[in-house]
Formats: sequence, C-alpha cells, structure tokens
Amino acid sequence: MSRSCAVPVFPFLSRCNMALRRVLALAAALGRRSCCSKPPLPPDFVEALRAVVGTPNVSTATAVREQHGHDESMHPCAPPDAVVWPQAVGQVQELAALCHHRRVPMVPFGTGTGLEGGVNAVQGGVCFDLSRMDAIAELSLEDFSVTVEPGVTRKALNKHLRGTGLWFPVDPGADASLCGMAATGASGTNAVRYGTMRPNVLNLRVVLPDGRLLHTAGPGRQPRKRAAGYDLTSLFVGSEGTLGFLTQATLRLHPLPEATAVTIASFPGVGAAVACTVQVLQAAVPVARIEFLDEVMADACSRFSGMGLPVAATLLLEVHGSRCSLAEQQQQMEEIVQQNGGSSLAWAEGLEEREQLWSMRHNAWYAALALRPGCQGYSTDVCVPISRLPDVVVETKQDLQASSLTGPMVGHVGDGNFHCILVFNSQDPEEAQRIHAFTQRLGRRALAAGGTCTGEHGVGLGKRALLQEELGQEGLDTLRSIKAALDPHNLMNPGKVL
Amino acid sequence: MSRSCAVPVFPFLSRCNMALRRVLALAAALGRRSCCSKPPLPPDFVEALRAVVGTPNVSTATAVREQHGHDESMHPCAPPDAVVWPQAVGQVQELAALCHHRRVPMVPFGTGTGLEGGVNAVQGGVCFDLSRMDAIAELSLEDFSVTVEPGVTRKALNKHLRGTGLWFPVDPGADASLCGMAATGASGTNAVRYGTMRPNVLNLRVVLPDGRLLHTAGPGRQPRKRAAGYDLTSLFVGSEGTLGFLTQATLRLHPLPEATAVTIASFPGVGAAVACTVQVLQAAVPVARIEFLDEVMADACSRFSGMGLPVAATLLLEVHGSRCSLAEQQQQMEEIVQQNGGSSLAWAEGLEEREQLWSMRHNAWYAALALRPGCQGYSTDVCVPISRLPDVVVETKQDLQASSLTGPMVGHVGDGNFHCILVFNSQDPEEAQRIHAFTQRLGRRALAAGGTCTGEHGVGLGKRALLQEELGQEGLDTLRSIKAALDPHNLMNPGKVL
Repeated sequence: MSRSCAVPVFPFLSRCNMALRRVLALAAALGRRSCCSKPPLPPDFVEALRAVVGTPNVSTATAVREQHGHDESMHPCAPPDAVVWPQAVGQVQELAALCHHRRVPMVPFGTGTGLEGGVNAVQGGVCFDLSRMDAIAELSLEDFSVTVEPGVTRKALNKHLRGTGLWFPVDPGADASLCGMAATGASGTNAVRYGTMRPNVLNLRVVLPDGRLLHTAGPGRQPRKRAAGYDLTSLFVGSEGTLGFLTQATLRLHPLPEATAVTIASFPGVGAAVACTVQVLQAAVPVARIEFLDEVMADACSRFSGMGLPVAATLLLEVHGSRCSLAEQQQQMEEIVQQNGGSSLAWAEGLEEREQLWSMRHNAWYAALALRPGCQGYSTDVCVPISRLPDVVVETKQDLQASSLTGPMVGHVGDGNFHCILVFNSQDPEEAQRIHAFTQRLGRRALAAGGTCTGEHGVGLGKRALLQEELGQEGLDTLRSIKAALDPHNLMNPGKVL
Repeated sequence: MSRSCAVPVFPFLSRCNMALRRVLALAAALGRRSCCSKPPLPPDFVEALRAVVGTPNVSTATAVREQHGHDESMHPCAPPDAVVWPQAVGQVQELAALCHHRRVPMVPFGTGTGLEGGVNAVQGGVCFDLSRMDAIAELSLEDFSVTVEPGVTRKALNKHLRGTGLWFPVDPGADASLCGMAATGASGTNAVRYGTMRPNVLNLRVVLPDGRLLHTAGPGRQPRKRAAGYDLTSLFVGSEGTLGFLTQATLRLHPLPEATAVTIASFPGVGAAVACTVQVLQAAVPVARIEFLDEVMADACSRFSGMGLPVAATLLLEVHGSRCSLAEQQQQMEEIVQQNGGSSLAWAEGLEEREQLWSMRHNAWYAALALRPGCQGYSTDVCVPISRLPDVVVETKQDLQASSLTGPMVGHVGDGNFHCILVFNSQDPEEAQRIHAFTQRLGRRALAAGGTCTGEHGVGLGKRALLQEELGQEGLDTLRSIKAALDPHNLMNPGKVL
C-alpha cells in the first residue's frame, strides 16, 4: 500500500472496491507529492479557479477528486488536486490560462469510461470535468453534420437525431462522450463500414494549453473534404487530451439504413471464422458489423444470456441496406458462411429480436466476469492485418492456456481488432504478474505481425513502452517534437501517451 | 519580364510557352539570387551529391532545372539549382543529410502534375526527382493493401492490380504518382464513395529533413485502424512536401465492383442538380461518382466530344455494386432525377460505352480551353457544405458574368467541391487582374459559406493568404509550430503552404 499510484509499478495489481480505491488514492497523492515534490494547490489559486466558474463549480473534496482520478481501467486511482466544471468555452479558456500561468497540470474529463487510465491525474493538477457543457448545436440535415459540446454522449446524440433519418454510427460500447471518443480515437462494432472517429470528425474546437482557441478546420467550417494545410483535426483526434481540450466537435452523420438484419454463425474453428470474414470483405459485401467471439466467449455469452448457442467460434453479422440489397447481402453471407463450414441462425430483422442478439455481445464483459465470480476484468486491444489474424488469435489462445489465464476473446474482426477479456484475482500478485507478462507478449505478438498495440482504446498509461516499440525511436521523437511544440510546458494530461 | 518568379507578384500573369517559360525561369533565378542573396550551389556540394547517387543522376543543366521548376499550374517557373534522381531510400537519406548539413532547400518532385505550384523551387536548392524509385512491393490480397514507391503512378498501380479483383479508386484525373497524391491530399471523382487519399493511406515511409527515416505508423505496420499516439500518417498526407519526403506509401485497396453503370442527367437549373445530389446522398444510395457540369461546361463538353447533349446543368452519375443492387440503385436514382425535374439517358454498362461518357468529363479541361482558342486555363478548387452549394454556385456564375470571364464549372458535387476552369489571355494584364480578383472573391465566398479554399489541389504557392483567413491566426500559428518542430531550418519545400 505504500506504492505510489502516480508511478504504477504494476497497473493490474490493485483493482479495488471503493474503500480500497480511496486508500490507494491517498497513498498515491502522498506518493506523488513526495516523489514529484509538487506542493498542493495554493489557496489563492483555488480561489482564482472559483472566480472563473463560481464556487459550486470547483471542488477539492476527497471523494470528488477520487471519483475523477480513474476511468474504467485497472490503473490505480490518481486523483487531481481540484475538479472544475466549466459551463462555457470562455471559462475553459480562462481556466487553462490560469493553469498555464501557474504551470499547473490540466486533465480533461468526459464520462470517465476510458480503458487506459487516460483521466488519471498522475501528476495532480486540475481536472476539467466538461460534462456540463452539453449543447447539441448546428444540426444540418442537408449536410449530414452536427456540432456537439463535450458533455454530449453518443446515445444522447442518437436520441436527439431520432426522426431525422440520420444517425452517428461510431459505437465503442460505453455511452461515452463524443468529444471523449474523439480524444481517444475510438471506434467499435460499426467501424468496418462507417469508419472510426477520425473520418467522422469534420472540425474540432480546441482550447490550447495556454487558453487560446483553435478550430482545427478553421472557425465554423465543415466541408466534407479539404486540402488546406496540415490536418489538425486528425492530429487532435486520438491525442488523448495531451494537446488541448476538445470543447466542441463537428461530426459527420450517416443516413439510417432502410433495413437491418443480424445473424449468428458458428464455425468449426477460429481459422474458419476469420477466413469467412476475409471472404465477406473480398466479396465487397458492405457488411455493417462482423463481431467475433471465440468458443470460450461464445459459451460464456450463451450461458449468461440463456441463449443456448453452440460452443464454437462464432460471428455476429449485421447488414444494412435497402430491402432488396439486404436480401442479396444475406444470401451472399450465407453462402460464404457455408463455404467455411459454418452454420447460421435465421436472420433477425425486427428491432427487439436484433437487440436481443446484440445484448448477448454487449454483455460479453459481464459474461466473462461471470466465469470467475469475484474477480476483476481487463481488456486487451491489439489490432493486426486480417491475414495475420488467425495465427495471432491461435497463438494467443495457446498463450492463455500455457499461462493458466482466463481470457475469452471478442473482436471487431473486420478490422483485425480483438480483445481478450482477462478475468483475474487482483488480490493475487502472482496471477497479476502473469497477466502483465501475457499482455506484454500479446502486444509484441501484434507488433511482430505488423499490427498495433492499440486499435481503439488508446495508449494512456499502460501502453507507453509498447508504443515506443511500435513506432521506433524516430516515430516517438516525432510525437515528442509535436507535443513539445503544442504544449511546451507539458501541462496537458502529462504522463499519458508519451 | 524583370519580375522575379521566385516571389510571384501575380501568379496568373505568365502562363507561357516553353520559350517564354525559359526566359521567365532565367529572370526568376536572377531575381531569386538578387532578392534572397543566396549563392549558387558550390561545386563541392554538387560533387558531394554526385558521390551519393552517381554522376548521371545529378543535373545542373538549365533545361532539366527548368523542367523541374514548375507543375501544371500558372505559377511562374522557379527552377531548382540542381536535380537529383535517387534510386533508393538510403540515397534519399544521404542526400537529405547533405542538404540539411549545408542548409540547402529541398523540393520533392513526383510527376509534376500538381496544380498549385507545389514543386516550384522558389528558394532554389535541390529538387529530388523520385520517379526512378518505382517498385510495387508487398501486395496483400487478403489485407487489401499494397506498398508503393514514389515513382508509381495510380494508373501503373491499377494496371499491376489487374486480375486481382482489387483496385485503388482515388482518381484526381492526372496520372499522378501515388506518393505525390498523398503529399497533396488528392481526391477526385470517386471520393464520395471511397474517400480521399487520407483514409486510404495506411502507412508512410518518410525521410525527414535531416535524413532520419520515419514510418508514420511504425516500420512494417499496416493494421486497418490504430489508436497508438498522434496520427502521423494523416499529418504527412497533405503536407505538400514541407515536412519530409514520402518515399513509400502503404495503401488501402478496394474490391472491384461486380458491375458498374453510368448515366447522364440534365436538369432545369443548378439548384435542381444539386438538390438531386443531396437527395441521392440522403437516400443512402451508395453512389460512386456524382459529377456536376454547369450548362456552359456541358455545352462545351458536348461540342468537344460531339455528343449532342442538352445545354443544361448536368450530372454524371455512376453506381457500383452487384447486378441486383445496381438495378435498385439505378431505379432510385432515376426516381430522384425525375423528382427534381431532370431527365437521364439510358444507363451505360459496358466498359467502352462507360469510357465514352467519362471521356467527355475527362476532356472538360480541353473542352473549356476550346472555348477561347489560344488562351490559358486555371482551375479553382473551393469546397463548401452541400447545403450551401447551390447559392455559392449561382453567385459564382453571376460573378463570372459580371467580371466578363469565361469559367465553365465542373465539380465533385457529392463532396461539395467544384472547379471553375478559367480560360483567359495570359498576355492581357487587365484580364489576368480580373482573374486574380475573381479567384480571391471565390475563395472568400467559400470561406463565408463554411467551406475551404482548397478541396483537393492543396495550398501550394497561391492560396497561402486564403489559408490564413480560413484557419485564423491560432490555426496558422499551430501549423507553423508543427512545421518549426519537424523542419526547424525551413529546408523542406520552403515557401509552400505557410
């Protein structure tokens, strides 16, 4: 317990209940103070914060700070010194200017649903909780675009869009804030057809570390394409809060499909399921979702949801389109499934029926946790070229077995991205050690296969070493040059990514 | 003629035949030397270049330098001091290190088909002609990816891909090099369905200004998506040679459509044609191309190709898909065309018939020039949100008329991107002045409509002032910070973009 959570020696050791979290947070704060020799925020600085946003919108209460010191990952809680709730972009600018002037670290906070410790305030400072800036502005049905503030979540946006014939398809699972999804470079189940966050963000309004306001595509602009200077939008998407605050995002919307159908297909093995995926893509079937579950996960999900599915490598396949094109896609899919020795259920087309099938997938996390009641979960996130996916998946399964670990697999297999949901006893240091070693091996296996250590969760705290291996020294040096150019005092979410 | 072409006072004044070009180049070189006080390259430096690539691969001949001192734009020729032809990436690194050490400007050169003066050596220095590095490597049919060197053009790649069932769809018209297209952030007719260069580049091998080698997504990597650090690939796509040399690009390929069909539709006015476009997109018809021609351009193209089309606002519509989905798309399109008061020809499905229709569009440049024989052409490149397109197009047509200018319009209207092909007498300073004033007004009109001054041609030399208006001071400062971080001595293609 004397370990500083600001410098996590071992990130998986201490998934904790709230009481334990608090103790760790305290130790962390003490450890951070002692190791970094940073003084707590002086009272006049806290007063200055209050002068900007009003007293009720600043908190230094322990419980509030702890609540903002972690996301949904295993990284130990690292609370900020204060939490502020700005209500408008001008306030974010003023607060940033204040912090910049006093060289106080700043950490953006959305919904806290990240998976790599992106919000943990490992160097203390001020957490900017942007959830109260939640306006949905400038919906343009003709331009298929909408502008949202950081408090707007993807579900809130899609609810707002009901009846317009448009939707925002990027779906990482959690009901994350859209600006947080942009900051993470999130994607999810629909990315194979609709892309990740990057191609779906048209413009970002960013508060820079010194409080200046940047519009990445220029103020008020939203052309569908541009070739005007370096692509600042793509630079800030996936920057994980290390370059500035995303205080508004202009997003590309998509027409709602006329019809949707889902099926579940079972295969004799992982190789067959992945081969089926490649053939679906090669046949140019405009598949909307191809989600993979290995036989352990399929079994867990089936039991958790009471669906009675075969214990087999499984694909969930969803198609979108007009009625006529849907029928054609379904026929093509069925043929490809059969060619790969698979068999599929009848297609579910009604909303309720489809949601029932997807709820099985959406509950994968809990189904995995149910395999070892009382244990904790951690999700890996590698992504490899599709041709290498069968080998990487098979080797990873062998590794899990050899390491005596529970880690059922799910994956956005159309993109080559898969997760092992590792379920382990966080109170057992030896098992935690095995988990750590396994995740490092998995990351390196993905790199060796020409892939990445993170397809959609980001680097955050836990993948900084792997990032260096992935990019090489020149790549990392280039990232550092950019970071130093845009945040010369390393005040924005310090300790993350780099 | 005494004007320095290194600092073009007026970029449209001097579209010249080759003899005139040479005179201008000479004046430019003299002007540059006198105004910038830069000495010519010392002989020992030229010897050092020869030592790297061999004597036949270095030239300081006037004709060669002039040939490399311009692209297809109106910007006056600005020849480099020497041209080198590296044969391998190691040579590019050595040459860059040499130039870096001696603080000599470097200009990357592909096919010279750019439209904004991107290759003009306005500060002299060494032109790196990368056309002899033309290997196509690592074609992966399973991963839908290929790696190409900078000498490979899009047509050469698609020829190489024949019989594989895959293709690379980005088509800016010219048979440009793929690395040059990446450097420009090119797009073209297929972008509405397949995207611009940015989402179609998976990795870039870049020689940095000091000769170090960077792989933007890490060495040898090509996952379909990643969330590992800032997106360096997107940063270098569209950087117009100002951050480094693109010496290899890994590209995303697409499955060839089973069937293709094209039609031409005529409308009562521009508004109806654009409204049709918006409805096609809203109906989620996965249209592959929607190209717009105003009535002047339709008439010019019709006469040039002898097709006898109506003199009317016109759309060329292309659909890709399976036979069944094609029939459905065609029916949807026809309904939408009729709803907007348009009428369309029978669909062309055979290759020859389709190519005949497209040749009309591809010859638009020459058809426009034929409107005023002996005159020169210049293409504008604004892109606006689709909802604003009718107004912007109508105002632009009125402006053309009020300015007594010939400027038929073509456009990738599904993206809101359109070009006026301005045809003018470059020997008439007064007309050139009107052209200049018109292009500035058009740029500002696009900006006022929430658009960009360049959808796909890039900033180059001519749009630097408009870029500042588009991005605002903070945006420009951010671009400058990035440029200074990655090229602190401003050696890479100086004078472009910023």
